[in-house]
Amino acid sequence: MSTELSLLMDAALDACCSPVTGGVLDAEAAERLAHIFKALGDPTRVRLLSLIAAQSGGEACICDLTEPVGLSQPTVSHHMKLLADAGLVVREQRGRWAFYRVADDTLAALSQALVPPAPVAR
Amino acid sequence: MSTELSLLMDAALDACCSPVTGGVLDAEAAERLAHIFKALGDPTRVRLLSLIAAQSGGEACICDLTEPVGLSQPTVSHHMKLLADAGLVVREQRGRWAFYRVADDTLAALSQALVPPAPVAR
Repeated sequence: MSTELSLLMDAALDACCSPVTGGVLDAEAAERLAHIFKALGDPTRVRLLSLIAAQSGGEACICDLTEPVGLSQPTVSHHMKLLADAGLVVREQRGRWAFYRVADDTLAALSQALVPPAPVAR
Repeated sequence: MSTELSLLMDAALDACCSPVTGGVLDAEAAERLAHIFKALGDPTRVRLLSLIAAQSGGEACICDLTEPVGLSQPTVSHHMKLLADAGLVVREQRGRWAFYRVADDTLAALSQALVPPAPVAR
């Protein structure tokens, strides 16, 4: 892993998510993590994230997303709202379209929060 | 990260979860990831995982878990079943009690699946 990515992940972790296996989580930390995981707990939303990340430039408008997932614009917009509320995508309005990109810092923080304890340390 | 942990994470990733931002996920890969994330999309279940990981020896029976989360044994058992079905904990029956430990390989795979693309590569 590059040092730059490692630093990004550390910073994001501080700002968002406590490690799942790093000690007993209090109710607030558990709520915060569960809120983000819940947004990922739907196959359409997981696919939407992968579709946005795969776009050239790393961003997509709703108009790019409806056809690949085979859903209506309002339904895709609803899914995108849940992803945005969880901090998993960043939304930017440009004219009549909203553009979305994956929030790498949130993904990095979630990833770090799930790293299991090193086997040698058990 | 230790080499041992890194190898564990690579192996687990192959067996379970495709990277969220490593290309457009097909329906099956998205279903598999969403199933695991859904199990984590509840604050009680996130706390239960952290409680089990924090036990000495890294395992807990239902009897260890009811009081800290303030829920009845049947309710905790239900949450543990969902975590076990998602592969997030491993259950072992000993006499009248079931013991659970965190499935480090699944956590490692999920963690790897969420690693964002390295910023230098964008």
